[in-house]
Amino acid sequence: DNTATKKYKIAVIPGDGIGKEVTPWAQKALEKAAEGVAEFEYEHFDLGAERYLRDGAILPEDEEERIKANDAILLGAVGDPRIKAGILERGLLLKLRFDLDQFVNLRPSKLYKGVTSPLANPGDIDFVVVREGTEGLYCGAGGAVRRDTPNEVATEVSINTAYGVERVVRYAYQLAMKRRKHITLVHKKNVLVNAGDMWQRIVDKVGEEYPEVTHDYQHIDAATIFLVSDPSRFDVILTDNLFGDILTDEAGAVVGGVGYSASGCINATDKYPSMFEPIHGSAPDIAGQNKANPTAAILSAAMLLEHLGFDDAAKKIHTAVEADIEELGSTVRSTDQVGQDILNRI
Amino acid sequence: DNTATKKYKIAVIPGDGIGKEVTPWAQKALEKAAEGVAEFEYEHFDLGAERYLRDGAILPEDEEERIKANDAILLGAVGDPRIKAGILERGLLLKLRFDLDQFVNLRPSKLYKGVTSPLANPGDIDFVVVREGTEGLYCGAGGAVRRDTPNEVATEVSINTAYGVERVVRYAYQLAMKRRKHITLVHKKNVLVNAGDMWQRIVDKVGEEYPEVTHDYQHIDAATIFLVSDPSRFDVILTDNLFGDILTDEAGAVVGGVGYSASGCINATDKYPSMFEPIHGSAPDIAGQNKANPTAAILSAAMLLEHLGFDDAAKKIHTAVEADIEELGSTVRSTDQVGQDILNRI
Ligand SMILES: CC(C)[C@H](C(=O)O)[C@@H](O)C(=O)O
Ligand SMILES: CC(C)[C@H](C(=O)O)[C@@H](O)C(=O)O
Repeated sequence: DNTATKKYKIAVIPGDGIGKEVTPWAQKALEKAAEGVAEFEYEHFDLGAERYLRDGAILPEDEEERIKANDAILLGAVGDPRIKAGILERGLLLKLRFDLDQFVNLRPSKLYKGVTSPLANPGDIDFVVVREGTEGLYCGAGGAVRRDTPNEVATEVSINTAYGVERVVRYAYQLAMKRRKHITLVHKKNVLVNAGDMWQRIVDKVGEEYPEVTHDYQHIDAATIFLVSDPSRFDVILTDNLFGDILTDEAGAVVGGVGYSASGCINATDKYPSMFEPIHGSAPDIAGQNKANPTAAILSAAMLLEHLGFDDAAKKIHTAVEADIEELGSTVRSTDQVGQDILNRI
Repeated sequence: DNTATKKYKIAVIPGDGIGKEVTPWAQKALEKAAEGVAEFEYEHFDLGAERYLRDGAILPEDEEERIKANDAILLGAVGDPRIKAGILERGLLLKLRFDLDQFVNLRPSKLYKGVTSPLANPGDIDFVVVREGTEGLYCGAGGAVRRDTPNEVATEVSINTAYGVERVVRYAYQLAMKRRKHITLVHKKNVLVNAGDMWQRIVDKVGEEYPEVTHDYQHIDAATIFLVSDPSRFDVILTDNLFGDILTDEAGAVVGGVGYSASGCINATDKYPSMFEPIHGSAPDIAGQNKANPTAAILSAAMLLEHLGFDDAAKKIHTAVEADIEELGSTVRSTDQVGQDILNRI
């Protein structure tokens, strides 16, 4: 009897390269983990480099509308060296993050037992980066005059609003309450004095509502040092769009490679669907070879489940992934083998 | 007979905290290494947090003019937690870099024998970051409206000119010719499409004049991964002001701490004096305790000597520092002890 089973519509954008290979495993993990509590109906979207090279379309309006009508999005990876940098990123990935107002980019970093960190003494690494997702230097403001002449001037404008910062700061405090209750704001307020000052004031102000949560501050340059020298000091790292991009890749390296890092682009108001993706790229060098590790994609399915409120189902995936890595993490396996091994444990 | 000895005027700005403790050792190393070839006359400037707290002055115009009349500048460190972030940085340190048009911020990273890297397998690390020093997000363009209200908007503008980029790109190619002949441009051209595209075009164009130098490109996020996973791949890293700030601190951590990293803020036209400083800060927590390691400051003296053309004298410092670290790097020593130990070897 399936009457208690909730039904969800999931938009699937496998994208390019290894995205196509790992996304099916995310779907399988989703289904198996949610058996009995949720059912998923998938709508596939053919978006990314191949589509663009074929017919020039990046994110047609009607397809974006159809994506919006889903309850959540599973994304693989987008990008292809044949396409000029920025076209797919700005036209597809960032366009979705911005249009769907996914203002929290949530990126957990955890050093799993069985994974070798490049650090000699990594300690116990388990933090989450709460990266703002709809503002800052990513908003596409800027331009160039006298392009390709000796007098060219190119600008990039970081736009930051109290509205946009406060909502992500609030999210970080709520998250910290469920964790070890510590927030580290990362910015560069000694140079970017306007934006940095605003971030700090809002963190201080919202912090008054969460007296149990402690918070401190680090400049982005210092934070990159601590990620290497003492990463276990972090619980929740709260930062802007660009600094979050940088820190989460460094964090991915520190926990043994971006192959184990998933991310959620979250619209915490649920007005539009949230999007879940591995933080790795399309990896054209190993694409089509059944070599890519699907673990990050599978972990993004767990984040999707958590987002929909199925904490127990998400937990099943986490437990399976942890056991798989601990036992077989150092074994060379194909994409399908890792996927099947994890699935068997769910 | 001293007739062949050249004479130079050096402005000394010890600044705050440990800056005051390490700068005298930089001067002593300078003198000893240059014995017989160069003589230095010092002009001390009382600038930094203490001066600001005493009389509100940050960088008075007449003092800046006197600084400009010197042949080079030795700087310790500037900063104090009692002063709001940005005031001394923007009013003193960055003001000097900008007013003196120090467009190359040169930051070598080397893993010395005897230093323990936090990486399990660091490999042979020896690269230089060429960071642009007078543009980008550091130019202080930006502002805030409706400050401290729910409708506040804060902006930061990155301004990049072909003029400013080309001169630092040219410097990087010249430097690469003296090294392993490889440049890695680091930017975020898939998001910051205006500035990133300009940087890439100029690197490509100037590169045609240096057919022996190969160059590749990495996004800033990917570069932070490689600094941890494979730092020995780098020779010359060429990047903008903000990305250079971030990468050099991470690089400092990777080579065992910013205590071994010096930097030069270079006006390669010699129109104004160049400035040499350790990349560490004023470290108020250990200030006044004779604990700070003066090695980075002493290495900044070597960079000053190289800049003035005294390569042999600079080499003496490098050799002394290398021998000191290899033999005693893991011993706990006071500031004065390390300074004296290095001096004895010069
Ligand atoms: C592909 C790129 C636009 C993207 C970003 O910078 O946000 C990626 O690096 C990421 O972190 O998801
Ligand atoms: C103090 C600060 C303004 C400075 C910078 O950001 O350039 C410092 O971090 C550095 O790297 O020299």
